[in-house]
Amino acid sequence: MGAKIRFFRGINYLWVINRTVVMTPEITFPSLLDIRTAHARIQPMIHRTPILTSSAIDRIAGCEIYFKCENFQKVGAFKARGAANAVLKLSSQQQSRGVATHSSGNHAAALARAASAAGINSYIVMPSTAPEIKKKAVESYGGQIIFCEPTLEARQHTLEEVVSDTGATFIPPYDHLDVIEGQATCALEIWEEGLSLEALVAPVGGGGLLGGTALTTHSLVPTCKVYGAEPEGADDAYRSFQANQLIPMANPKTIADGLLTSLGNLNWAIISRYVADILTANDAEIIAAMRLVYERMKIVIEPSCAVPLAVVLKYPECFIGKKVGIILSGGNVDLGKLPF
Amino acid sequence: MGAKIRFFRGINYLWVINRTVVMTPEITFPSLLDIRTAHARIQPMIHRTPILTSSAIDRIAGCEIYFKCENFQKVGAFKARGAANAVLKLSSQQQSRGVATHSSGNHAAALARAASAAGINSYIVMPSTAPEIKKKAVESYGGQIIFCEPTLEARQHTLEEVVSDTGATFIPPYDHLDVIEGQATCALEIWEEGLSLEALVAPVGGGGLLGGTALTTHSLVPTCKVYGAEPEGADDAYRSFQANQLIPMANPKTIADGLLTSLGNLNWAIISRYVADILTANDAEIIAAMRLVYERMKIVIEPSCAVPLAVVLKYPECFIGKKVGIILSGGNVDLGKLPF
Repeated sequence: MGAKIRFFRGINYLWVINRTVVMTPEITFPSLLDIRTAHARIQPMIHRTPILTSSAIDRIAGCEIYFKCENFQKVGAFKARGAANAVLKLSSQQQSRGVATHSSGNHAAALARAASAAGINSYIVMPSTAPEIKKKAVESYGGQIIFCEPTLEARQHTLEEVVSDTGATFIPPYDHLDVIEGQATCALEIWEEGLSLEALVAPVGGGGLLGGTALTTHSLVPTCKVYGAEPEGADDAYRSFQANQLIPMANPKTIADGLLTSLGNLNWAIISRYVADILTANDAEIIAAMRLVYERMKIVIEPSCAVPLAVVLKYPECFIGKKVGIILSGGNVDLGKLPF
Repeated sequence: MGAKIRFFRGINYLWVINRTVVMTPEITFPSLLDIRTAHARIQPMIHRTPILTSSAIDRIAGCEIYFKCENFQKVGAFKARGAANAVLKLSSQQQSRGVATHSSGNHAAALARAASAAGINSYIVMPSTAPEIKKKAVESYGGQIIFCEPTLEARQHTLEEVVSDTGATFIPPYDHLDVIEGQATCALEIWEEGLSLEALVAPVGGGGLLGGTALTTHSLVPTCKVYGAEPEGADDAYRSFQANQLIPMANPKTIADGLLTSLGNLNWAIISRYVADILTANDAEIIAAMRLVYERMKIVIEPSCAVPLAVVLKYPECFIGKKVGIILSGGNVDLGKLPF
């Protein structure tokens, strides 16, 4: 592995801060063996989540859908996989200094929990304006919160300070090979069920889950088409796909609050190679799909999680009559603010 | 079986209309063999629902809870079991004339669906004021709705007319041995998992589920205590239990809308013999338990379904340190009116 990788793995917090770093083709993505090894590594820290079906939704969609329920995952989201893998792959010297990230979402909770489970410290940089419920989640998993002003600059600066003071390793939420490798274990569990899917749909925000899903599926069942599902109001992956180059997201606006982030560099490198297409849905379509899951499947999902079903219903030309896998990414929703 | 039973099975719609009929000890309750036979009978029409656990809720409750998820059952509630059993036990002559009931709740949908699956007609008497969503549910399962004025008299009169016009068999929602036998198959599935539970808690409204649960458990594991969980605002089972005689409910008021009904005669006969105790919770406690299930288990349940967890949290003296089964009875909730 070349200099870029050393840079990424070494002082990797700069990777996200300095977005001008250019990807080169010399990067080695996790292999199927790497993903299988990661799965064995994180096994004690995660749930093997169930795959559910709904004959009512199948009738509506005109296809046979298999829902991989990561809303039942530890911390309520697939993020538990990537965070656990990244923490467990650190050297014992690195582990002794802890891990750090800036996030107020599922990654923060997942990293705090993975660190606690591994018996190490975690430092979570959060804007002082973060909702009380998110702070409590991180604290309940044993994470140490460092508050900052609610600006990108303050967040990055505070993270740099924390890393410099503690020697902790920065684990970014998606633009990191160990995180992607961890998220790739979700599709591995799907394929281990022997379902002979013809299409597999995952939501795309930063691209950790979609990237990992594409890597696993390309290795195991290259004939299966992997689709990214994205909100119209945060469609950087869609536009990047159309333009054949990474276009960062500016001013995203969607109810799917887990998908507001821009696609990562590593993630784009994988997605541009191995994903069949990016399909988008608007907020009304996302809410309708979300409601359908609550009503027919009786499970709790967050809005971001409903985007794959929304696109499966919206683009029958891609899915009708097929066996389709959908990754339900998470269930951490503010129950007081459900959109119905 | 004596005259009372013939009366019940024959023109059984009179049973509910004429509440002065007195139970006699000559009634033979379904045996374990009957319940096993019912389970085999309804198998093609129902789901074998999963049993879920939550380490977070276990920590809060101080006991080991196994949740039997009938919210994932066909039509979203355990009612699918009793309705299927009652329909399938009819003679082919009875079946050819269809089935009838008055209900706007889960039993109506369950009976319509069971009838459709058996290829027979179902006539559902509903108040003209019933919510649109309930009408649609019955129609979507192929039930024929007959509207009546929203009074008890109109409902009973309309049902009598329907039965007299069509020759359909009235299948009441709970006060019926075949219905109870069907609901008893839920506990059978729990015990087949070999969980060595020390307590099993089911909600109680009319008493079909609790009665069936008590019958199965008494036959299989008589050392396991079966508890009924009831809202304070509809506590006829609790008061009946205290008074050692059936006291009908007057003016019930609770968020647990599936438990507003008065305990049935047959149901009381079973419950008074085989249930250890009836525990009650108020609406605030029910809502808190409901929220806990949404947040920690990521599943959708209706308020009635949260009453067992509410009492397990409220009465630690009965449950702490034990292996406890909870039947989550259903998930048909108006998502626009969630109490949080």
